[in-house]
Amino acid sequence: MFGIFSYDIASPRVGVKHHDHILDLEIVGLLGYFNELDVDPAVFAKPVLNDFIELGKPVWQAVGRRVKELLSNEQTAFEGVHDQVLIHESRATMHLPVRIGDYTDFYAGIHHAENVGRMFRPDGDPLLPNYRHMPVAYHGRSSSIVVSGTPIRWPKGQFLQQGTPEFGSSQALDFELELGLVIGRNSRLGESVTVEEAEDYIFGVTLFNDWSARDIQRWEYQPLGPFLGKNFGSSMSAWVVPFDDLEPFRVGGPVQEPTPLPYLQASSPGHFDLTLEVMLNDVVISRTNAQYLYWSFAQMVAHHTVNGCNLNVGDVLATGTISGTEPGSYGSLLELSWNGERPLVLPGLDESADSKRTFLQDGDTVVIRGISTKHGHTVELGEVKGTIFS
Amino acid sequence: MFGIFSYDIASPRVGVKHHDHILDLEIVGLLGYFNELDVDPAVFAKPVLNDFIELGKPVWQAVGRRVKELLSNEQTAFEGVHDQVLIHESRATMHLPVRIGDYTDFYAGIHHAENVGRMFRPDGDPLLPNYRHMPVAYHGRSSSIVVSGTPIRWPKGQFLQQGTPEFGSSQALDFELELGLVIGRNSRLGESVTVEEAEDYIFGVTLFNDWSARDIQRWEYQPLGPFLGKNFGSSMSAWVVPFDDLEPFRVGGPVQEPTPLPYLQASSPGHFDLTLEVMLNDVVISRTNAQYLYWSFAQMVAHHTVNGCNLNVGDVLATGTISGTEPGSYGSLLELSWNGERPLVLPGLDESADSKRTFLQDGDTVVIRGISTKHGHTVELGEVKGTIFS
Repeated sequence: MFGIFSYDIASPRVGVKHHDHILDLEIVGLLGYFNELDVDPAVFAKPVLNDFIELGKPVWQAVGRRVKELLSNEQTAFEGVHDQVLIHESRATMHLPVRIGDYTDFYAGIHHAENVGRMFRPDGDPLLPNYRHMPVAYHGRSSSIVVSGTPIRWPKGQFLQQGTPEFGSSQALDFELELGLVIGRNSRLGESVTVEEAEDYIFGVTLFNDWSARDIQRWEYQPLGPFLGKNFGSSMSAWVVPFDDLEPFRVGGPVQEPTPLPYLQASSPGHFDLTLEVMLNDVVISRTNAQYLYWSFAQMVAHHTVNGCNLNVGDVLATGTISGTEPGSYGSLLELSWNGERPLVLPGLDESADSKRTFLQDGDTVVIRGISTKHGHTVELGEVKGTIFS
Repeated sequence: MFGIFSYDIASPRVGVKHHDHILDLEIVGLLGYFNELDVDPAVFAKPVLNDFIELGKPVWQAVGRRVKELLSNEQTAFEGVHDQVLIHESRATMHLPVRIGDYTDFYAGIHHAENVGRMFRPDGDPLLPNYRHMPVAYHGRSSSIVVSGTPIRWPKGQFLQQGTPEFGSSQALDFELELGLVIGRNSRLGESVTVEEAEDYIFGVTLFNDWSARDIQRWEYQPLGPFLGKNFGSSMSAWVVPFDDLEPFRVGGPVQEPTPLPYLQASSPGHFDLTLEVMLNDVVISRTNAQYLYWSFAQMVAHHTVNGCNLNVGDVLATGTISGTEPGSYGSLLELSWNGERPLVLPGLDESADSKRTFLQDGDTVVIRGISTKHGHTVELGEVKGTIFS
C-alpha cells in the first residue's frame, strides 16, 4: 500500500505500509536500493503520489516488486539502516495520498439502489429504467475529500420540516461504505477508453466514506442530483492498494441482464471478492463484499470516457454504496435503520437511547475497513475513519 | 481583463487585453512599472492566474489600477518599450486562464428552468418545489473545461431510440449561454461564507458555454443528475473580467417570493445588467441579459458554502443557462427550437435545410459574447467560441 506521510522534521513523502511501520521510499531510493530501476528518488519526496503515478505502470510494478523483495528479507536487506528507512507509524502523520482533480461517484451497488428505490418510490420498480443499462454516476466535490482520521464537521442546510423548508443542522447524517479507484493514467479529451483497456487506467484502490446528509439531499436533489447533501466532506483511506494486489481476488460479477451495450461488454471477469465492514463506535454494524457491485471497475472507466470525457492521474472514481442482500450487509444507516423506521440497536449493547441509531449522533466515529484472504493470499485495504463533530 | 497568453518563444504568462493588443505583465513588472506595489513580477510568469489571484484582492485592485493608469497614457508611459510590452493578439496563443479545482454549475436562470419544466413536465408546475428556495446546482467536470477556440468533439453515448437504449453520436447537441465566476479566495472546510461577504470571494467573471447532449442527458440523469450529457466539454472565455469592473452595471434582481431563508438574504442589490448574445455561424440567434438570473452571484456563493463545503482559488461557479422571457432571448437551442418542435430558421438566410436548426450540426460554430454600456461605462466580457467536429 502506497501513501504519503511525514514525521519529525521530515516533510511529506511516499511510504509503503509494512505491519506497524512505514518504509520511507525517498530514503530507500537515496540509499541506492532503486539504482537498478529507472526511477529518480526525488519522485518520492513529494506531498502527493501523482508524480510517482505519472511514471507509469511498468515503474509502479517494478518499484512494488523491489519493495516486496526488500521487505521479505528486511533484517538483511536493511542491515545498519533499518531505523532510517522503517518509521514506526506512531511517529507518522498521514496525508491525503493524491491530488484529486475530479471526483466521480457511481451508483454501482445494486442492492443499495434497490433499497433506496423501495424506500422512496414504494409503488414503482425499485430500480429506475436506466440502472441496468449503464453505470449511473455523478460528479462530486474534490476540494472536501479528506484523509482518514480528519474530523468531519456536522453540516447545516435546508431541509423540509412538515412540508416547509427550514434551515438547521442536518437531522439525518449518514455514512456510505464505498471503494475509491485512483486513476493511474491520463486519457485524452475526445477519446474513449475501451472496457478491455480500462483496468490499465487504474493505479489502485482505497476505502471511501461518502458522508451524506439525507434530509438536505432529499430536498435539493431534483432535478440535478446531490450537492450540499454530500459535498461537506468525504473521507478516503491514507493508503492506496495497488490494483495488481487485487488479482487473486478476481471473480465474475452478477449476471447482467439485459446484456449491456457492446462498449460495456468485457471478455473477462472484472469483479473482486473483497470483504468489507463498518464499525460504529467500535461495534461492527455491517459486513459486506465488493462482489455485490453490479458494474465492474472496468465498466465504470469505459462508461465515464465513452463520450470523450478525459480522466487524469489522481482522479477518484468511487463505486457508490456497497450493500449486500441482507440487512446486516447494508452499507449505510439509511438502509440499516430503513430510513429511521427500524432503529439499529448497536450489537453488544443494551437498548438504551445511546445504543440505538437511526442516523449518526454528535461524536460518533465510523470506521470502514477491509481485509481479505483467499487461496493463501491476503490483501489489506486498511481503514477509513472519521468522527463527526458539531 | 486578465488572461494567460504565450507568443513566439515566450512561455505562458499573465496578460491584460487592450483593444487588439495584450499587455505582458511579466515584462511590465520586470521593467519596474510595479515597483511601488507589493508584487513580484514572477507571479506573472505563470501558466495560470491562480498564483496572482492568491495574492489577494488588494493586490488585484492595485495592479488593475496601475495597469489602467499606464494604458490610459500608453504612448508616454511605455515610450521606447511599447513593442516590448504590448503584443498584437494575432501573435498570441490564449490558454485556459485558471487551474480549476472544482467546477459547479447552478440553475439560476429561472426562465430556462421554467422552459425546461414546460417541455418535460407539461402537466405540472414548471418549477420544482425547491427552485425558489435555493440556488439549485450540481458539480460538473473540471478536466474537460477548455479555453475559447478549442474545437469540441461530437460526443457519443447512450440514449433512447423508440424506447430502447442505443449507442451512437448524440442527435441533440446543444450549447448553453452562461456566465462563470472565478473564485478569488479560499474558504475553509467546515465554515460558511455569508451572503454579505460572498462577493469578496469572487475574482472575476467569464463567458461560459456548457455544451450539452440532450438525448444522453435525458436518459442518464435520474436520479443523480447530468453526467455524460455534459462532461465531454465546456468552453470558457480566455479573459477574466475583474469583478470590480461590473460595479457600474449593478442592479436589483427579480422579486424573490417566497422570501429566501435568512442565510440567502442580502441587504444590497446583487444582480448585474449585462447584455449577452449568441451567434451561430455568424448569425445572432439570441440576445439576453444576466439580469434574468433569479439568484445573485452572492447567493450562489453563500448557498454553496452553507454546509461547510470549501471553495478554492480558481474554482468556477457557472450560473446555468441564462434565458429571457421571449423566444429570441433563450440561451439554448433546446428552448430556441422548443425541443426540436419549432426548427429555428437562421435569420438572414433562406429556409433551406442548412439554415434550419433544431440542434447543432457538424461543423457549427457557436460564439457567446457580451459588451455592455451604461452611464458612460463600458464593460467587455469578450467571447467564448467553439466549433463542433465529429
